[in-house]
Amino acid sequence: MAQEKVVRFGILGCAAIATKLARAIGMTPNSSHYYTEGLSVYAVASRSVDKANAFASANNLPPEVKTYGNYEQLLDDPFVDAVYIPLPTWLHLEWALKAAHKKKHILLEKPPALCVEDLDTIIEACNNNGVQFMDGTMWIHHPRTPKMKAFLQNPDLFGDLRFVHCTFTLALSGKFFEEDIRVKPDLDGLGALGDVGWYCIRAILWANDYEMPQSVIAHPGPVLNEGGVITSCGATLSWQDGRVATFHCSFHSCLTMDLSVHGSKGILNLHDFAMPYEESSASFFSSTNNKLWEMNTVWGPRPSEHRVTAEFPQETFMVQEFVRLVKGIQDSGGKPDSQWPSISRKTQIVLNAVKTSIQEGLISVTL
Amino acid sequence: MAQEKVVRFGILGCAAIATKLARAIGMTPNSSHYYTEGLSVYAVASRSVDKANAFASANNLPPEVKTYGNYEQLLDDPFVDAVYIPLPTWLHLEWALKAAHKKKHILLEKPPALCVEDLDTIIEACNNNGVQFMDGTMWIHHPRTPKMKAFLQNPDLFGDLRFVHCTFTLALSGKFFEEDIRVKPDLDGLGALGDVGWYCIRAILWANDYEMPQSVIAHPGPVLNEGGVITSCGATLSWQDGRVATFHCSFHSCLTMDLSVHGSKGILNLHDFAMPYEESSASFFSSTNNKLWEMNTVWGPRPSEHRVTAEFPQETFMVQEFVRLVKGIQDSGGKPDSQWPSISRKTQIVLNAVKTSIQEGLISVTL
Repeated sequence: MAQEKVVRFGILGCAAIATKLARAIGMTPNSSHYYTEGLSVYAVASRSVDKANAFASANNLPPEVKTYGNYEQLLDDPFVDAVYIPLPTWLHLEWALKAAHKKKHILLEKPPALCVEDLDTIIEACNNNGVQFMDGTMWIHHPRTPKMKAFLQNPDLFGDLRFVHCTFTLALSGKFFEEDIRVKPDLDGLGALGDVGWYCIRAILWANDYEMPQSVIAHPGPVLNEGGVITSCGATLSWQDGRVATFHCSFHSCLTMDLSVHGSKGILNLHDFAMPYEESSASFFSSTNNKLWEMNTVWGPRPSEHRVTAEFPQETFMVQEFVRLVKGIQDSGGKPDSQWPSISRKTQIVLNAVKTSIQEGLISVTL
Repeated sequence: MAQEKVVRFGILGCAAIATKLARAIGMTPNSSHYYTEGLSVYAVASRSVDKANAFASANNLPPEVKTYGNYEQLLDDPFVDAVYIPLPTWLHLEWALKAAHKKKHILLEKPPALCVEDLDTIIEACNNNGVQFMDGTMWIHHPRTPKMKAFLQNPDLFGDLRFVHCTFTLALSGKFFEEDIRVKPDLDGLGALGDVGWYCIRAILWANDYEMPQSVIAHPGPVLNEGGVITSCGATLSWQDGRVATFHCSFHSCLTMDLSVHGSKGILNLHDFAMPYEESSASFFSSTNNKLWEMNTVWGPRPSEHRVTAEFPQETFMVQEFVRLVKGIQDSGGKPDSQWPSISRKTQIVLNAVKTSIQEGLISVTL
């Protein structure tokens, strides 16, 4: 059997989420252990080599894994094919550009950039250097997602899309609000909007087949910290034909990940859209042709559960998709895929429109 | 055993919903059949006596039930203690005032009025005539409702209220949009906002302990018919301390009745808030201290179901509450209760603020 070319990953920064990705890479098919066919965690870089070593050890990476005390060294390693960048958002532009120039394919944590212009610069650099760009939105790659899409695309069961509502909220502690980079204006100025609102906006665009809304307006009552970072907000998106979507994201509320999609004939809903309650399977709920029964005193049907089994955690499916695209370029000299960068870009445009609306006093932003 | 004074109901108009109420009155405790202790359907009026007779017959009312060919005659009947008024909204002011002047207690279908001024006139007339006023919002009287409230008031399980989202949507047919009074500007100009948005606004106020929001702003994308009647809309309500609520109501979407209430520690949600799926019991779902587990790859707990059994359909609980207040006046000469009229009034104020926001180009309306 011919030895398949390995996609060698470098992890740029040892954020908590990197642990998840290191595990995901190890669990990806053709990678039952590190350094087999398919792909591997090849190198890890942190701001000190001790940190990188500690990460490798804590994540049971094999001793062969290269550890670097700065990001430049990892990018200079010619054996690194692709990088996963979980750095704070404000560092994305610098390190994504450097990685692209070193011909590394880029899996970039979300939100990919602080503004659309920065993201465009990153995507352009990836295209110019023939490397793949993808953002780190995991749930979109879960096998549940196409199953839900099939329901939304069924004209008999769902009908025409009318309304989407989505929330992603987290209850964070006092310590978080003092220390975390996600609430520091000079580090990650998008706050809750970038950290969790990103997922809501993506879900709304996904339900709308990535058709961009005509306008975006933030809801009254956004919460901003002293540095002006958004810690809670919401918005309404609207389309010319009457479709409407709302979302709410917050660092001050009990953890929720709700998604409801209303059609003329059917309804889809789930409470764990961005991260399934468990790894081995995930459910969504739907009902069709709901009606009042018997003198309008009762109604139905109740939502029915659709369970989708999953061989791997969702981040593994994401890595799999990324590797598929990278291999398309490596093995057959193809161009970078443009679908995922385009979806990232649309999400970023809406996200920054919400931010603009908040900054400008809740104005309506036309896209 | 002393014979209790019967509360004799007159039904003013034979709308479809009157069927539900006639049944509810018959099922109310101490009313195992008509004309026993407690209460009874005593009279029915329609625009013709044939219609009234047909209603009495279709609803198996006993032959003793009085049937009238116009509403005035029913109000002139001195044996009628209370009226249930399911007439189109534009007729509420006229007939509620006439009923109050005839000293009839009033159970008025929702929305109680086209505007706050009309509702104030009705409530004032009821107070001046010493009769009880209550609107026909049924779900608020279901035994599930205080159980949900107990969860929201539990500081350990729910914490502080942050966000409410509510929808009530219906998929109505082409015939409805041509013929129904709820889409005629001169008959029931509040459209979907009055018919189903009313329930959402009430639910939001209920979750907020009836504390009024500081401002109300309609969402982009309201749908209005040629006559200017709202057939789909939404709005954001916001409170000074950062609490936010959104709702969406529509005649163009699959039937849904979703309510989600987010607290700092817990979450409440249900998909049938305004009318339980079944009459004998109703559920709500809650979870507390939701957290990411195991490397942030899974989370929980899942929402847990709380099932509340119900001896009667919810409209019976509403009638029971109304009769309790009427008896308080009849039996001990008490004054009309002011709690329910005040709640009606707050709901109507928010509802009309949403309408104003839509009419004035989606402006923010300060309350």
